[in-house]
Amino acid sequence: MAKRITGPEIEKLIQLLAKVPGLGPRSARRAALHLVKKKDQLLGPLGKAMGEAYDKVRICSCCGNIDTADPCAICTDERRDHGVIIVVEDVSDLWALERAGAMNAAYHVLGGTLSPLDGVGPDDLNVKGLVSRVAEGRVREVIIAVNATVEGQTTAHYITDQLSGFEVKITRLAHGVPVGGELDYLDEGTLSAALRARTAF
Amino acid sequence: MAKRITGPEIEKLIQLLAKVPGLGPRSARRAALHLVKKKDQLLGPLGKAMGEAYDKVRICSCCGNIDTADPCAICTDERRDHGVIIVVEDVSDLWALERAGAMNAAYHVLGGTLSPLDGVGPDDLNVKGLVSRVAEGRVREVIIAVNATVEGQTTAHYITDQLSGFEVKITRLAHGVPVGGELDYLDEGTLSAALRARTAF
Repeated sequence: MAKRITGPEIEKLIQLLAKVPGLGPRSARRAALHLVKKKDQLLGPLGKAMGEAYDKVRICSCCGNIDTADPCAICTDERRDHGVIIVVEDVSDLWALERAGAMNAAYHVLGGTLSPLDGVGPDDLNVKGLVSRVAEGRVREVIIAVNATVEGQTTAHYITDQLSGFEVKITRLAHGVPVGGELDYLDEGTLSAALRARTAF
Repeated sequence: MAKRITGPEIEKLIQLLAKVPGLGPRSARRAALHLVKKKDQLLGPLGKAMGEAYDKVRICSCCGNIDTADPCAICTDERRDHGVIIVVEDVSDLWALERAGAMNAAYHVLGGTLSPLDGVGPDDLNVKGLVSRVAEGRVREVIIAVNATVEGQTTAHYITDQLSGFEVKITRLAHGVPVGGELDYLDEGTLSAALRARTAF
């Protein structure tokens, strides 16, 4: 836009909003207008919330979760079973598993997967932290909950290797048909895995 | 989520982000994680930009545009033809027309359309402001660029009525086939209008 149609502060807001995942240049403009119209209910509080999050956010030095306390709320939760560690690639995976609410365990965030093509090697992942947590001797089981991709599986094998010297049970997520999934839409790999791992009715 | 898995400041950020148009509860969580990970490049600057926009944003008392100055950048732009006023429903329409860049005119934002069912009457729209701008005598043409909906057309008729006492040309946007549009996908009303308003090849 060569001609100025609104203030530089609003243009700046639109530019930054366009970088938020889920918003593009066009929806950023719509979002900015909505924010400005709901100045007191949304723009002000959201700006303040961002400032507070900016000041207080920490990465848990134990498990890698994002929180405003270090160690995080999960690592300091005494009602959890800290003898079981669920290993995930990213904080978003940790949050997804917590939403499922199936386990009351501790976590470990790797911060990615091994990917030589992208230049991600073992030292770029937080595997050492996992090994030293296991070395303390109180962990009974490590559940490897990485994505079912080639990189994820490579990472899973590497972790299994690193933990081979310890007396700890290493498990991984089951493969199978997603709940609510239709067979016709599933790939052959998933169907084969679901057949191999069939259970008694 | 009954169990706390992250800090209250981050939960608050997710809650507020979910209210931004274009983001839902799930994408708000993803956006918040991205913001927190890009703390210095995105979270900090965006929070600051929101604070600045909150402090400085104004609604132009002349045309209703949103800007950080009052009167706005368009109303004070001397290179524009202030003898032509384009009447729009919303600031987003003003911005859309400016992106098209077809006219170098002034604007007037109504702030909605007449909609008796939703309780929006003539006094809820900024029609009086338009009438007094026209009454000053320097306006030659009013282009009514409201949406082609029933409410938009009702509003257009109401405005025409209010301006009937003044010597001013009142025009409206042409109906027709959208550029790049396929006839097969267009409704009968649009096709009829396009046929009626056919032009020489």
